[in-house]
Amino acid sequence: MSKVHNFSAGPSILNQDVIKKASEAVTNFNDLNLSILEISHRSKDFVAVMDNAVALVKEILNVPEGYSVLFLQGGASTGFLATILNFMSKDGTGAYLNTGAWSKKALQEAKKLGNLNMVASSEDNNFNYIPKVYPISTNDDYLHITTNNTIFGTQIKKLPVSRIPIIADMSSDIFSRKINVSDYAMIYAGAQKNLGPAGTTLYIVKDSLLGKNDRTIPTMLDLSVHADKGSMFNTPPVYPIYVSMLTLEWLKANGGIEWIERVNNEKAALLYNEIDNNPLFEGTAAKEDRSNMNVTFVLTDESKKEQFDQLWNEAGISGINGHRSVGGYRASIYNAMPIESIQVLVDTMKKLNS
Amino acid sequence: MSKVHNFSAGPSILNQDVIKKASEAVTNFNDLNLSILEISHRSKDFVAVMDNAVALVKEILNVPEGYSVLFLQGGASTGFLATILNFMSKDGTGAYLNTGAWSKKALQEAKKLGNLNMVASSEDNNFNYIPKVYPISTNDDYLHITTNNTIFGTQIKKLPVSRIPIIADMSSDIFSRKINVSDYAMIYAGAQKNLGPAGTTLYIVKDSLLGKNDRTIPTMLDLSVHADKGSMFNTPPVYPIYVSMLTLEWLKANGGIEWIERVNNEKAALLYNEIDNNPLFEGTAAKEDRSNMNVTFVLTDESKKEQFDQLWNEAGISGINGHRSVGGYRASIYNAMPIESIQVLVDTMKKLNS
Repeated sequence: MSKVHNFSAGPSILNQDVIKKASEAVTNFNDLNLSILEISHRSKDFVAVMDNAVALVKEILNVPEGYSVLFLQGGASTGFLATILNFMSKDGTGAYLNTGAWSKKALQEAKKLGNLNMVASSEDNNFNYIPKVYPISTNDDYLHITTNNTIFGTQIKKLPVSRIPIIADMSSDIFSRKINVSDYAMIYAGAQKNLGPAGTTLYIVKDSLLGKNDRTIPTMLDLSVHADKGSMFNTPPVYPIYVSMLTLEWLKANGGIEWIERVNNEKAALLYNEIDNNPLFEGTAAKEDRSNMNVTFVLTDESKKEQFDQLWNEAGISGINGHRSVGGYRASIYNAMPIESIQVLVDTMKKLNS
Repeated sequence: MSKVHNFSAGPSILNQDVIKKASEAVTNFNDLNLSILEISHRSKDFVAVMDNAVALVKEILNVPEGYSVLFLQGGASTGFLATILNFMSKDGTGAYLNTGAWSKKALQEAKKLGNLNMVASSEDNNFNYIPKVYPISTNDDYLHITTNNTIFGTQIKKLPVSRIPIIADMSSDIFSRKINVSDYAMIYAGAQKNLGPAGTTLYIVKDSLLGKNDRTIPTMLDLSVHADKGSMFNTPPVYPIYVSMLTLEWLKANGGIEWIERVNNEKAALLYNEIDNNPLFEGTAAKEDRSNMNVTFVLTDESKKEQFDQLWNEAGISGINGHRSVGGYRASIYNAMPIESIQVLVDTMKKLNS
């Protein structure tokens, strides 16, 4: 079969070497003559996987001392809840920046379970920009942000200056660019974009902030419990963590964050350049807030839709339809997406006749 | 390499055909030329997996109308919490039967977040039996039971007669024997014993009981939300669900529950027979409560330990050390364990010199 250019928004493309190793481990893991799917999570072979995955996160993101790296379950949607239970005091308030569908889900949960202070929102313009000037009250327990907005194709380029702890949902741009972990009280991210397959969620959390909330925290949502047990309080999602470890090994071997940030900048520039120079297309996000992960664009002439859809289908492109709330197209160009696939998309855009 | 006889308590042995298909799907799923790890959970190919997995559960367990079958995340430990939030009213009480380490964790969570009524406990004798006579108050919201106790090797053979809804943690014996789903308000089970790899948790829940509790339920723990969205409220753990589907296909193709119950009875009888007839071994659980899934036994003469450990190691047996709270040995003989492997263990036990 010919190559598929997989622009899916997530679960999304993984590196081919990672996939090959991931497949092999299902039949024979570490030459044990056992599948990784059927070994105990307490076995030394899996404990080594967990330790290695944690060490790689720390190395690649330069995580300072005093932070725990956890691989848990439940997706970012559970992260919304973990944020509230671990960081919002019983009578306290969480400050939220509303930059898209996922931000909104996070803040709705805060409203449901506590008090919400929405510091700013770009919903007035269908979330096509990132609000930049807004007050942050030191009365609030934390500021919650979504660093990349998958659906709307925007990304926070500059972290707000905040005197309260910042908690960031980085599900769709973690490991795509340099970050300064010490700027955050907590970072959480569903694995299924830049880290691995669906089924595990990464937390990077400042230890000194845990165990201090006055809420009754259910055990499975208490991050101090998971930190104390090294993500092994209960059976972890073994295989998603293993594939995440392989992805982190791939990232490290190729040059880590400096390398991938440079590559991601090149990849995004290639596609945005075509969008800006081809009169048949236009981007939907404010230029200064454009995401390097999810590139959203529409046709300037809707009558060309059938022709364009046929062209990209023929080119082997998949997963490029925009989310229903934006329409048009969305090219998700996560870490594992090769620039060659983006070139195929750009060439296809050039082929569209005006 | 020679065959490994994998008696691990969980994550545990899977059928070899399942493993082969599971490995292939990682490189090329459904001939899409894409890995199952990198496709969208909204793609028609994965939606078909989810639909098939749910249909197989319903068929194999003969699930009546009015129950939802869900594949969620978080393990049985999250099931403890989902039980309380969805079924224990704000001022209500949960009744719990305490038959082992996992029962105890479930009831401790109830104590933490509400009111606990422990109807009976076998902790007085290190959980080596199942309490059978105890009052069940109709003032309590539900009765929670753990049908099989992995660590202690006991299993509930006869469901208590209860006028309040029964909620069962069946993590370690679901799909091993016939059950009458309509006897339960909810059944939940971590996949990693009889169903698939670690990373997904099965819920079978009576729809008419959902959405009626007076607690504020966080979205991700509200089973009515997941039931409404067919386990697709957020990104599901794609691969663990896929491998579970394969396991269910294997079970159905071989004859379903009737077949596996008969095989499990034969397998357990083979091993218990040796334990009862070999003077060098004795079982730790009360005979009438012995588990067909986890067979716990000790040496009658501890001085034989070194010799026995060497014998089973040489025979290619793995994962047979008992849990530290019982000591001795534990042979977990879940559905996928072939009787040939149990015969190897029995032969090894016979080889031990008196």
